[in-house]
Amino acid sequence: MGDTTAIPLEGWYDTIQGDVYTLLESPAGTNRVRKAVIFFIASLILLNVVVVILETVNSVYLEYTTFFHVFDLVTVIVFSIEYILRIWCCVRNPLYSDPVQGRIRYALSPYALTDAIALTPFYLPLIIPIEFRLLRLLRLLRIFRVLRLGKYSNAFEMFVSVLRSKREEIVITVIMAIMVLILASSTLYVVERDVQPEAFGSIPHAMWWAVSALSTVGYGDVVPITPPGKFFAAIVAISAIGLFALPAGLLAHGFADAYHSMKHEHDTDKTLTCPRCGAGIDRRTGAVQETQKKGAEKETHEEMDR
Amino acid sequence: MGDTTAIPLEGWYDTIQGDVYTLLESPAGTNRVRKAVIFFIASLILLNVVVVILETVNSVYLEYTTFFHVFDLVTVIVFSIEYILRIWCCVRNPLYSDPVQGRIRYALSPYALTDAIALTPFYLPLIIPIEFRLLRLLRLLRIFRVLRLGKYSNAFEMFVSVLRSKREEIVITVIMAIMVLILASSTLYVVERDVQPEAFGSIPHAMWWAVSALSTVGYGDVVPITPPGKFFAAIVAISAIGLFALPAGLLAHGFADAYHSMKHEHDTDKTLTCPRCGAGIDRRTGAVQETQKKGAEKETHEEMDR
Amino acid sequence: MGDTTAIPLEGWYDTIQGDVYTLLESPAGTNRVRKAVIFFIASLILLNVVVVILETVNSVYLEYTTFFHVFDLVTVIVFSIEYILRIWCCVRNPLYSDPVQGRIRYALSPYALTDAIALTPFYLPLIIPIEFRLLRLLRLLRIFRVLRLGKYSNAFEMFVSVLRSKREEIVITVIMAIMVLILASSTLYVVERDVQPEAFGSIPHAMWWAVSALSTVGYGDVVPITPPGKFFAAIVAISAIGLFALPAGLLAHGFADAYHSMKHEHDTDKTLTCPRCGAGIDRRTGAVQETQKKGAEKETHEEMDR
Amino acid sequence: MGDTTAIPLEGWYDTIQGDVYTLLESPAGTNRVRKAVIFFIASLILLNVVVVILETVNSVYLEYTTFFHVFDLVTVIVFSIEYILRIWCCVRNPLYSDPVQGRIRYALSPYALTDAIALTPFYLPLIIPIEFRLLRLLRLLRIFRVLRLGKYSNAFEMFVSVLRSKREEIVITVIMAIMVLILASSTLYVVERDVQPEAFGSIPHAMWWAVSALSTVGYGDVVPITPPGKFFAAIVAISAIGLFALPAGLLAHGFADAYHSMKHEHDTDKTLTCPRCGAGIDRRTGAVQETQKKGAEKETHEEMDR
Repeated sequence: MGDTTAIPLEGWYDTIQGDVYTLLESPAGTNRVRKAVIFFIASLILLNVVVVILETVNSVYLEYTTFFHVFDLVTVIVFSIEYILRIWCCVRNPLYSDPVQGRIRYALSPYALTDAIALTPFYLPLIIPIEFRLLRLLRLLRIFRVLRLGKYSNAFEMFVSVLRSKREEIVITVIMAIMVLILASSTLYVVERDVQPEAFGSIPHAMWWAVSALSTVGYGDVVPITPPGKFFAAIVAISAIGLFALPAGLLAHGFADAYHSMKHEHDTDKTLTCPRCGAGIDRRTGAVQETQKKGAEKETHEEMDR
Repeated sequence: MGDTTAIPLEGWYDTIQGDVYTLLESPAGTNRVRKAVIFFIASLILLNVVVVILETVNSVYLEYTTFFHVFDLVTVIVFSIEYILRIWCCVRNPLYSDPVQGRIRYALSPYALTDAIALTPFYLPLIIPIEFRLLRLLRLLRIFRVLRLGKYSNAFEMFVSVLRSKREEIVITVIMAIMVLILASSTLYVVERDVQPEAFGSIPHAMWWAVSALSTVGYGDVVPITPPGKFFAAIVAISAIGLFALPAGLLAHGFADAYHSMKHEHDTDKTLTCPRCGAGIDRRTGAVQETQKKGAEKETHEEMDR
Repeated sequence: MGDTTAIPLEGWYDTIQGDVYTLLESPAGTNRVRKAVIFFIASLILLNVVVVILETVNSVYLEYTTFFHVFDLVTVIVFSIEYILRIWCCVRNPLYSDPVQGRIRYALSPYALTDAIALTPFYLPLIIPIEFRLLRLLRLLRIFRVLRLGKYSNAFEMFVSVLRSKREEIVITVIMAIMVLILASSTLYVVERDVQPEAFGSIPHAMWWAVSALSTVGYGDVVPITPPGKFFAAIVAISAIGLFALPAGLLAHGFADAYHSMKHEHDTDKTLTCPRCGAGIDRRTGAVQETQKKGAEKETHEEMDR
Repeated sequence: MGDTTAIPLEGWYDTIQGDVYTLLESPAGTNRVRKAVIFFIASLILLNVVVVILETVNSVYLEYTTFFHVFDLVTVIVFSIEYILRIWCCVRNPLYSDPVQGRIRYALSPYALTDAIALTPFYLPLIIPIEFRLLRLLRLLRIFRVLRLGKYSNAFEMFVSVLRSKREEIVITVIMAIMVLILASSTLYVVERDVQPEAFGSIPHAMWWAVSALSTVGYGDVVPITPPGKFFAAIVAISAIGLFALPAGLLAHGFADAYHSMKHEHDTDKTLTCPRCGAGIDRRTGAVQETQKKGAEKETHEEMDR
């Protein structure tokens, strides 16, 4: 294991480790083998999700029990091997280069942790002798892995970065939505609690109505029936219903901006040339730039285009 | 049929074929006859759709059976003739110029195929002696043809191109919506299945609730009744309800951008020519410009107009 | 009446007619009397709407019958006088300057017609001796007049112009929404009609479900109950639910653009000065401009600011 | 008390008053003590809201009565002290510098008033010997204070300023929504009142349906059942449903614009200074600029930051 730290020393061990790392972790695969591996893992994850969903249907489960058991075994073996290989070769990532500490930190990263949790439903019953049937649903968590595989991983990263860039507006909107929720449900609690003690008997009870009304879902299981209750519910509908729709609008804007700026970044060069002295200046920071940086930027652009 | 390949040789056969082609297929008709033909076909399609819808109302069907039968016969004859004429003259289109292969390829294009399927409900029972009453609904497919006729065909094409330009964002949003759907329904399945085995007895069953809740339709036929079920449903409503509204927001942005860029390219030729002295002036800055740039811009305009 | 044509001859008749015209029709009133008249008419219209609404509540109607009758009489007298005065003085508007033809054309303009229809519930029973109680609801039409009065008339005009500028996109969206409606309801008709002949017995019946689902209202009175019905309803919810939300998004964009361009129009001058010959050129049309026009533009700007 | 007017004379009284003022009212605290005070008050407010909500649940209230009473006492004491301190030191704010008039004006400002109202549920029963249990809900008003504390106070102010900038469009949309509401409910009243006298017996009754339908909540407790009723309800759903969604769209745009312009003003000082030769360069065009312009721009930036 001490060998792994010696990155320049390229023995057969290192070569294999490097190849496995490239196969499992490199972000975009032009390589044909890499593509096949991605396709295989993605298919297995999706199939696994479908199987987990279908297993909950009793009639289907009873008829295909054997198939489900075999399929479970196969996926657990494949995902266990993949998990071990990832832990083994993560040291090739400069972030986790230390053979012990790096591997532990990698194992605690969100994605590796999700994978580990998704494997527990199979290994836990071997240790503790109880059959947790519901635990198997944890395998559904594996679905998040699909987002990082294949051609939509860039689009997903854009989604996350948009979510992050609009974080402040979304948080303030959610806070205000919760405030309106509290005020609406306490008003309806005051007005309706005597007539409908079941549904509006306390503010937490009334909140179920408020969520259903403000989100415009409107199940209809709880409805104000007194005239003042209906009046306040109408006021809430007219004045505050937009609050729950705002985050979607903000995200749509964020997407449009992100796409626009991505496109814009291509068009206008980030570096200016001073007309007086000919120095290259970064358009944003105003600092003098070395010409190498420009080449580096071009590379990230090309990566984006893929 | 060999004549059709000889496009320069303009005999009466070619002249008629060309005229028919212009009448049926040319995109925008300033011609009066062309306009009348478009109006006639569009009206017949819309009338046909109305008739197909009304036929399903038993009381109406029983009273006007004769009318419906006659109308069906007339539309089938008209659309059959139109279909044969289209197949006959499609060779005038450079894309389908080959008399045999071109016609086959044309017949397999989405629009021609839709037309053919829309005709089957009449011809199939002649071959197979079974009365498929539901099959007649296939005639509703003809409705898509209306989109390519008349003055809104451009707007429809813009709609399709916007849909295409926002494809990536919409796909990732739909993928994430499906993920949220799966996680929401499995959570509610775990929480509610013991109390409501009918509605939450399996994940696929719980999905019906999840679709109804996340899309904000909220039929109310399936509603969580346990406190934790209501709690998780509220969390879903507050955090994830925007996902289903996002595609509409993205499309609205796409529309706005498409319209904006279309208008920007058309209206404002960026350079003005001073009517007095003939100097080229930049419309924005008001500075005198070189004339070469203008020619280059015009080219991109023409490209847009196509 | 012949006097009115002689506009330069300013006798007392003309003076009064002009004053009345200014009082009733001039768009923006800085005048204090004009403001009072607008306030009085707007209040009367709104009060009238409230009264019409309250009259339909039987308990309220029975208790305040006398008040309602007196109020009705007063409003009818005021609005009749106002209507006659408008018809009388409309000849001061250059559009309706002819004493006979102009007045008829004015009386047939949408707003004057709406006013006339809103007066019929009072005068019709005098001619035909039947009591139409529902007819009185026609007085609600008067509500549209409020939009043209007071400080929000500009905002309303912007709303109308935005609606007009986005007409094409909105129409195509509505057409596509109706198509999806037809296809969704015919699919559910095929799938659910045997199980729910009441609700899905014909396509028009199924459309009630489809409207409720696609608009996300989801009353819940009609819900698919067969698994394929639920499956297709879910597909529709995931893929097409945005269509009904699109027009709102488009309008929001239109508003933003209209506001932006209105602001932009202020900032950048419409006229360029050719740096070579000093001629004033219209930035949009590229034509040489007289300097007077610029002054005229300033006026429209000032009008906008009000 | 006369001392407070002598601001330059900094005795120990003034020093303490100034410190308290900084602690309680200064908008952004880099100071550690200030941060702790904000955190303490914000936590107490949020805890207080949670307690008020939980108190309405009878089973919880009965079990933890003593805890609730003690907690109420503590919060009332803290908030009373805080309120008195705010009134005492508000004279340090130039807006309320007069010891008597300034303090009265401060006490009547919306936030101080809300705080006073939130304290009444405790003090009022001491004066009037009646136990108002519902009055305690007034303490929920304290929740608005949270918006002005901590790191999201800027985001909240942006929200308010966006709301203000889009006021006109939102008001006109709400007015039009109310008009559509009136027309929709009177139409359904005419059509459905004979069949459903309970739900559509008067226009105000029919409005409950109209609010539920136009806001897309769709509780389903009131649904048109006659064919013309369903027809008109469908027309309303297709044509007017967007009106209630418009304000959210407008706000989303307003947010995007506000954020965009804020960022634009901050990030990009329009002029760069070449670090090598000191020439002012326009960030966009890359041309050498005069330095005067920059000073003028800086002023507007500072104005923004306030």
